[in-house]
Amino acid sequence: MQTIALILAYDGTPFAGWQRQNNQRTIQGCLEGAVSQINHAPTEVRAASRTDAGVHAEWQIAAFDTERTYEPERFRIALNALTPPEITIRHACAAPDGFQPRFESRGKHYRYLLWQGKYLPPFLINRAAHVRPLDIQNMQKAAQYLLGEHDFSAFRAIDCQAKSPVRTITKLDITYASSPYIYPCFDDHSLIQIDVVGTAFLKQMVRIIAGTLVDFGLGREPSQMLEILESRARVNAGETMPAAGLTLLRSFSSLDDIMNHQLPQEDVC
Amino acid sequence: MQTIALILAYDGTPFAGWQRQNNQRTIQGCLEGAVSQINHAPTEVRAASRTDAGVHAEWQIAAFDTERTYEPERFRIALNALTPPEITIRHACAAPDGFQPRFESRGKHYRYLLWQGKYLPPFLINRAAHVRPLDIQNMQKAAQYLLGEHDFSAFRAIDCQAKSPVRTITKLDITYASSPYIYPCFDDHSLIQIDVVGTAFLKQMVRIIAGTLVDFGLGREPSQMLEILESRARVNAGETMPAAGLTLLRSFSSLDDIMNHQLPQEDVC
Repeated sequence: MQTIALILAYDGTPFAGWQRQNNQRTIQGCLEGAVSQINHAPTEVRAASRTDAGVHAEWQIAAFDTERTYEPERFRIALNALTPPEITIRHACAAPDGFQPRFESRGKHYRYLLWQGKYLPPFLINRAAHVRPLDIQNMQKAAQYLLGEHDFSAFRAIDCQAKSPVRTITKLDITYASSPYIYPCFDDHSLIQIDVVGTAFLKQMVRIIAGTLVDFGLGREPSQMLEILESRARVNAGETMPAAGLTLLRSFSSLDDIMNHQLPQEDVC
Repeated sequence: MQTIALILAYDGTPFAGWQRQNNQRTIQGCLEGAVSQINHAPTEVRAASRTDAGVHAEWQIAAFDTERTYEPERFRIALNALTPPEITIRHACAAPDGFQPRFESRGKHYRYLLWQGKYLPPFLINRAAHVRPLDIQNMQKAAQYLLGEHDFSAFRAIDCQAKSPVRTITKLDITYASSPYIYPCFDDHSLIQIDVVGTAFLKQMVRIIAGTLVDFGLGREPSQMLEILESRARVNAGETMPAAGLTLLRSFSSLDDIMNHQLPQEDVC
């Protein structure tokens, strides 16, 4: 038996999220179908993050066990052929036996995209949330209150099952984003990215943080972010932003060293 | 009667190109359907560029005539509501009576995207061509031979109807592209953009130039570009690259001054 780890990217639009469900097209379902074909036996594929319906990923980590003795690269080629084009297997590598991506996670980097221009351009359909013009300096000030270790009860879904609401956010940046589809000299700052890095996240935490930051972008007093956080009450935070604006940009794990990819080590959090 | 000019963006994927065709979904067809509804009469919508099937646009110029006396902004709102989400009307403005975008064109900026990584990531499906690793310095050297006014017979489709094959290219840059979906510190240079600016273009000229530049990226001797150009023979140039990698990033016109948008004037060619 060997364990193969995969680095996945996917467009979440046509899927009902990561997690396998009866009669629904899911990313886990598609991958398990493909791996089971190769293994000639039903096989589970486990992931670092169970992304919601419509959420995208550029660097999700998954793993499965196999009795096949193929090189990892052969699995990658076969799985890319056996999965829909909205799923890309970027890398495949040999992982420690029974590797569990969830338990080996060293943190995650999520990016939420906001479009504050008048009309959402076609390349951002299903990729960004359309919002009114925002004051990003105000958002940046409010964001500072969320950095560090806190009880994030105000920023989790009502049905969140996590035992502890305490999480640590190591980075929360609000900046203008670039894209090959934005005319270079317009510089109109229509596309905004919210970058959130943390060790782990509560259910819908990033989308609720994004929705709350939008409220501050619309003029709420920055120090009120501290009041929201300390209230521990979901009702005081902003709305849960649409899934389509969210991308799991990167999942960090103990595999990073093994994979020895091009990531500068100072950037691993 | 008044003439309304529109600045359009569209995802070309679900359309059989700009030009109206029987029993085909086209961008012109969708817009004419919407404008005709507002006008209560069949109305032609004319564009600066008749983009091919699958080609995208971020700044296409179109115009139509109307007996309605609405403010341009009302047309914009109505047309955004009456057209599919893959078409966005960015701006609407009053244009000189009978304004003809094709004849008022002051040049175009096309961008072609190439992905040289191992697997095409999901966000670039229908947006970039997947190629083998390229030497972009070699491409840049070869590109210099195409700058200026030349007979571009070698770089036009066999069935191109233009009377003269002489065109002028004012800019031809090959650079690495950024995207909000590429992890910031990877810096792996997988996404390449070819920027072509000129006064006007022959049929499939940008896609043939892109295909020829790919040949140079794969090692062809840069000075051979001059031989290809001087041969005036289509057979000597590279392949016509897929439409999906091409975006009409901007169409310049005499409207630019009227619209007074945020474009720095030194960038208008």
